[in-house]
Amino acid sequence: MSLKNDLLLRAARGQATERTPVWLMRQAGRILKEYREVRQRVGGFKELVEHPEFAAEVTIQPVDLLGVDAAIIFSDILVIPEAMGLSYQVIEAKGPTFEQTVRSKSDIEKLRVAGPEHLSYVLEAIRITKRELHDRVPLIGFAGAPWTILAYMVEGKGSKTFSVAKKFLYTEPALAHALLEKITESTIQYLKAQIAAGANLVQLFDSWAGLLSPDQYREFSLRYLEAIAAAITEVPVTIFAKGAFFARKEIAATNCSVIGLDWNMDIQESRALIGDAKTLQGNMDPCLLYAEDSVIVHETHRMLEAFGPFRHIANLGHGLYPDTDPRKVKLFIDTVKNFRFKV
Amino acid sequence: MSLKNDLLLRAARGQATERTPVWLMRQAGRILKEYREVRQRVGGFKELVEHPEFAAEVTIQPVDLLGVDAAIIFSDILVIPEAMGLSYQVIEAKGPTFEQTVRSKSDIEKLRVAGPEHLSYVLEAIRITKRELHDRVPLIGFAGAPWTILAYMVEGKGSKTFSVAKKFLYTEPALAHALLEKITESTIQYLKAQIAAGANLVQLFDSWAGLLSPDQYREFSLRYLEAIAAAITEVPVTIFAKGAFFARKEIAATNCSVIGLDWNMDIQESRALIGDAKTLQGNMDPCLLYAEDSVIVHETHRMLEAFGPFRHIANLGHGLYPDTDPRKVKLFIDTVKNFRFKV
Repeated sequence: MSLKNDLLLRAARGQATERTPVWLMRQAGRILKEYREVRQRVGGFKELVEHPEFAAEVTIQPVDLLGVDAAIIFSDILVIPEAMGLSYQVIEAKGPTFEQTVRSKSDIEKLRVAGPEHLSYVLEAIRITKRELHDRVPLIGFAGAPWTILAYMVEGKGSKTFSVAKKFLYTEPALAHALLEKITESTIQYLKAQIAAGANLVQLFDSWAGLLSPDQYREFSLRYLEAIAAAITEVPVTIFAKGAFFARKEIAATNCSVIGLDWNMDIQESRALIGDAKTLQGNMDPCLLYAEDSVIVHETHRMLEAFGPFRHIANLGHGLYPDTDPRKVKLFIDTVKNFRFKV
Repeated sequence: MSLKNDLLLRAARGQATERTPVWLMRQAGRILKEYREVRQRVGGFKELVEHPEFAAEVTIQPVDLLGVDAAIIFSDILVIPEAMGLSYQVIEAKGPTFEQTVRSKSDIEKLRVAGPEHLSYVLEAIRITKRELHDRVPLIGFAGAPWTILAYMVEGKGSKTFSVAKKFLYTEPALAHALLEKITESTIQYLKAQIAAGANLVQLFDSWAGLLSPDQYREFSLRYLEAIAAAITEVPVTIFAKGAFFARKEIAATNCSVIGLDWNMDIQESRALIGDAKTLQGNMDPCLLYAEDSVIVHETHRMLEAFGPFRHIANLGHGLYPDTDPRKVKLFIDTVKNFRFKV
């Protein structure tokens, strides 16, 4: 069962590739009318996540429709809190909301370490996807980073500042660590189960990394990323810590293979900080895809040149925005695929 | 008319000070019940901004109640778009909304360059404040940075991504520059009028700096900050570009005297990038003020030691959060005021 296109995995491992591989965060989603049709059929975002056949269908759509070099399982980082005992709802245009939040020792004690048995619907979606992908491209599994998951569990909903969650770190550091341990343990089991089900690479999303000071990031996020990256030895691990420009060197010291960059991070500077032993992923501003075609092509070329031919996986610096024209997305992808470095 | 306490101005100019001066972004505001009383009396946030007597009253409150080393005029960065012809409303818990947005050439042509005559209520508030402050501490004037102002004018409201405004930069760069020129010209006149009315230092807030890529920041923000800093020669200028870690060196090359740091920016690294010719302002995480007293004192000492005794103005790395206990705010201020460097 060898992959027909293994560019992503070779790039992640630091092996030579004929060209730079490309995929996009949120490639399966609202930009595609084919996705919106499936979502409507099944009833909503969360229903889609929870129905393996449909989740697999939208996971494969961008491979067929956009020609990306990898699929990423359609799911949500908040399946982990739910599997730990904290259910949530997704309200259209409002984002996720938790009925109960975690604030006290007893709240944490009530939570279980989630095992694969609590997340069987995701694993089933991975198995179906693998079967239906016919090894055309690798499948990426993922989870939220423990700090980002804690942020939602304590805050109870999305927030610009996550000041309730940050207050928890300042006022209850011991409880925060107890909760982070439980999340970390659940996440390691979950990622290993994703790999057993067929994921060829796993990515950790630390979406709220940029809200913490460098010191707090070290204490409450980095050490758990380290633990996860050390525990996952089966496949390459990608860490994408949005906004954590200040921690690039430390992330490079973990056992991950790939480091995601957002569009604020200068490419050369990041390479200098991170060194040559990691693959970099990113980092085009998602808003570039609103521009005229010639601007998209020009800026994509500039990005590819700046990263160079080795250890780069082309991507955006954040997820696709929902109102992006799929034709522009395809232009970005095709521009990467057609580009060759001068030898 | 010499100031009784001119620590802030001496620090801004790089002169020696007996101790580190301290003030807080959003020190006049919702954390104080005395502020909420005045706001209720006058009817709301915007009404307060537009009534000079009341604006002056809440400007002086933190000097009396918290003992800060500077007052900052109570106003809003959005007075500039309004003076240019684009009125806005502030809806409680929702933030600012513009009825009309700027998207086309004719939209921009319809806007005027705002002159001091369109902002007389702010200037009057400054004059009243100066009179009633009795030269106890300096008064800080301020304006939004042109990119941040454009972001609101194009987007029409607050946003997590400001993707509509960013799309405008990508699709209509020439129009964006035309609008930025008009905002810049208005801002220079406005700041000069604030200084003529009595402001002892002026600060530019580039609140949405961190949403732009380094290249876009250079093109659409930095050059206008440069123009403003070059035009204001009467008093020291502070530039606070939240999230623009990537532009610290370039901001240091402008004619400003003080550079604000947010709590993500490492203090020593920032000093190394910026050099010794600028004063640094900041940069405590506002969430620290939720912590226990001993943690606040300890972290404040660590911050002061990291900045050192020269060219530092103590502040937060962002505005105070509304639910902060004023007693904790005072503890932060007193900790700075009581701290002495070992000689």
